[in-house]
Amino acid sequence: MSHQPPISLWPDPNALGPVTDLYELTMIVGYLSSGMAGKQASFELFVRKMPPNRAYLVFAGLEQAVGDLLRLAFSPEQVEALRGWPMFRNVPGEVMDALAALRFEGDVWAIPEGTVVFPGETLLRVTAPLAQAQWVETYLVASLAYPTLVASKAARIVSVAGGRALLEYGARRGHGPHAGFLAARAAYIAGFAGTSLAEAARLLGIPASGTMAHSWVQAFPDEPSAFAAFARTFGGSSTLLVDTYDTLEGVRRAAAIEPPIPAIRIDSGDLDDLTRRARAILDESNRSSVKIMVSGDLDEQRIAALVEAGAPVDGFGVGTELITSRDAPAMGMVYKLVELDGEGKYKLSPAKKTYPMAKQVFRQRDADGRFAGDHVTRADEAAEGEPLLVPIVRGGRLVGPLPTLEAVRDRCREQLAALPDRLRPLDARPDYPITYSDRLEADARRLMDRVNRAGI
Amino acid sequence: MSHQPPISLWPDPNALGPVTDLYELTMIVGYLSSGMAGKQASFELFVRKMPPNRAYLVFAGLEQAVGDLLRLAFSPEQVEALRGWPMFRNVPGEVMDALAALRFEGDVWAIPEGTVVFPGETLLRVTAPLAQAQWVETYLVASLAYPTLVASKAARIVSVAGGRALLEYGARRGHGPHAGFLAARAAYIAGFAGTSLAEAARLLGIPASGTMAHSWVQAFPDEPSAFAAFARTFGGSSTLLVDTYDTLEGVRRAAAIEPPIPAIRIDSGDLDDLTRRARAILDESNRSSVKIMVSGDLDEQRIAALVEAGAPVDGFGVGTELITSRDAPAMGMVYKLVELDGEGKYKLSPAKKTYPMAKQVFRQRDADGRFAGDHVTRADEAAEGEPLLVPIVRGGRLVGPLPTLEAVRDRCREQLAALPDRLRPLDARPDYPITYSDRLEADARRLMDRVNRAGI
Repeated sequence: MSHQPPISLWPDPNALGPVTDLYELTMIVGYLSSGMAGKQASFELFVRKMPPNRAYLVFAGLEQAVGDLLRLAFSPEQVEALRGWPMFRNVPGEVMDALAALRFEGDVWAIPEGTVVFPGETLLRVTAPLAQAQWVETYLVASLAYPTLVASKAARIVSVAGGRALLEYGARRGHGPHAGFLAARAAYIAGFAGTSLAEAARLLGIPASGTMAHSWVQAFPDEPSAFAAFARTFGGSSTLLVDTYDTLEGVRRAAAIEPPIPAIRIDSGDLDDLTRRARAILDESNRSSVKIMVSGDLDEQRIAALVEAGAPVDGFGVGTELITSRDAPAMGMVYKLVELDGEGKYKLSPAKKTYPMAKQVFRQRDADGRFAGDHVTRADEAAEGEPLLVPIVRGGRLVGPLPTLEAVRDRCREQLAALPDRLRPLDARPDYPITYSDRLEADARRLMDRVNRAGI
Repeated sequence: MSHQPPISLWPDPNALGPVTDLYELTMIVGYLSSGMAGKQASFELFVRKMPPNRAYLVFAGLEQAVGDLLRLAFSPEQVEALRGWPMFRNVPGEVMDALAALRFEGDVWAIPEGTVVFPGETLLRVTAPLAQAQWVETYLVASLAYPTLVASKAARIVSVAGGRALLEYGARRGHGPHAGFLAARAAYIAGFAGTSLAEAARLLGIPASGTMAHSWVQAFPDEPSAFAAFARTFGGSSTLLVDTYDTLEGVRRAAAIEPPIPAIRIDSGDLDDLTRRARAILDESNRSSVKIMVSGDLDEQRIAALVEAGAPVDGFGVGTELITSRDAPAMGMVYKLVELDGEGKYKLSPAKKTYPMAKQVFRQRDADGRFAGDHVTRADEAAEGEPLLVPIVRGGRLVGPLPTLEAVRDRCREQLAALPDRLRPLDARPDYPITYSDRLEADARRLMDRVNRAGI
């Protein structure tokens, strides 16, 4: 797929102004009223803490987040509605006019999609007039955290699948139908081969995968006639679901179809045992070419067990566990003010150490090209390694076309290949060195001293 | 809010045809090719098993699901894309034309939104030509499961909040920004007072709630000037966030503001201790009218603990735990063929007992009006109690206007009040009697016998 404008999933992508927490809007109105809206602010987005069962994250979601950001605006009826709300009713008309006229005209730097990232490092930085930079908080976090959760979960699944085909089958289990699109894209970035969600496949230009449901088989008088009808319609594309009645009998019936079908799917039962028996039946029936797909509440643990046991599975369909990132359905991704008119800012909280000032992240590699550690500096410092944050938006416009989905997926493949081995096991502890530059440490100390002294 | 057409969250609500799993489309093409597309089918939607930590569910999401269903169609470019996919490439043009022309023209019966429901009972039934009824599976499940999860979680929170205000604050933690809308609506149905998501509040006509972020306080030279600026802008609507630096010092500063502000918010720390100290400071400062809001990783357990301990909290903002239904982020909601041209159908699986034939659910109450048990019958049977499934769509059109959101919320309030006491504790076991009519049992036995005999 070539460089398309980012896909928007909204009825009117030019009316996303109030798709945000109300407090962003009250703060904007407050900044406008206090003459502070134009101060130059930098906010940074990062993950506070590694979610459970994760040793690395795959950053995803940037295309939708940035695409929507560039079109951020209020429709006239939205502004009209806001004017009538209790908290805005006494705000001077010219302030509400200024809110209505708001656009995002700032800069965005970000780590490219598909990059392996870690908590405590800046993933995205917005530099813009304070009102604009504040506006985008809710939408950016809502757009980036979920795809990152799904891509990170998908990467774990890819890591144990031993190269077998992985298909995202979760559409009906997503948190609303739109989540299916975001998940299909995130899973594809992390190495999945396709999705069952037809419209996601079409919009993204990625493979759609699907076979039949049990209802197909039930709709016919018996299984052989159901299989025959499907094969008549789809010929060489007919993957048959064999576990509606007796699974092995279903395999025998599928094996008897002429010309041979490409694959069968088993959706229930002891998959290790059933796939071995199915493989034997298929091979004895001169159907060595027929592949075996499995599905049904699969996650990385069950897939790893099947692969390690040597079960003859050619592909896995993964639904609920992936699309909900079930063992870690949320994470503490935050967006914090770090700099205002050149002055460092951060929330003082002993439990949540963060650093002021706009930052850059440098990734260092060892002699084998594996990730050795990340070094966080001020944005104006130089350091060894690859600077991960790159300019995406300048003055409210894309610096250049966003990478294609294939390019993002390629990047992710290279990134996952460069993971240190100790982070690969499913039960790996998060153990990746992140260091902060002396200047950042000094900035943090200076700010802490000032706050403590002034008792602000 | 009066009877509006259901809100759609899609760029083109008339192009949702492929927002479904590919296998629904392959099956439709197969049914069209096999001359079976017009057979009259009934599919039923139900939850297989109670999710963890739940003893009852609140059914929600029907308005969006049905609204989108009525407009279901393919755009010309969608059909063009499908024609080029490998599995459809050899399908005769007239079959693809028939797919392209598909509309939903069937009937839908459903339990009204806001009703307390249980696993094993029919929540919604579609009766339509087989191709149409199959088409809607993925979209219906994706639209109904998530709001039901959120409304069910919200009901638990409402049950322990002792009448204190509850606000849905989760927008940034939802699985993509659209989830925020669905969650705001579901939480409101279950008794929440409002949402932080401004656009959801506008579209739904419900209260928007929001204060300020820590970044507001940090943007000013000190906390007093930040508070003063906010109060200058918003006067009587100014809820001040007091925990950016020293929480109790923040409370003292908020208490000093003239005229008095309506509320403070505390977002971190030991909320039991801090709210008591804050209350004392406010009361000593002649600020008994100032309410105390709390937020920060709250769930029903933490809220129950604060309420039981008598912490002086006036309102709770609930985010991540609610919007992700974190302890139960998915559930086994399924949509199964139960009847085809008058003949009973169901998937035979010892672990998953279900019943064939179109069904009705009768709810029986005890002398106090509490729910005593549900009795599931064939749709053409009569029984004691309230029949829960009502006609919603007939021949592809709404039978009448859908209930307003306020009416749904009222129904939910009445439903929750009628819960048996044993289901109310947060750790209640799912223990609600559901029985099946003799005719259903006989239908199930007959079908099982026939399948076993025929070896299909």
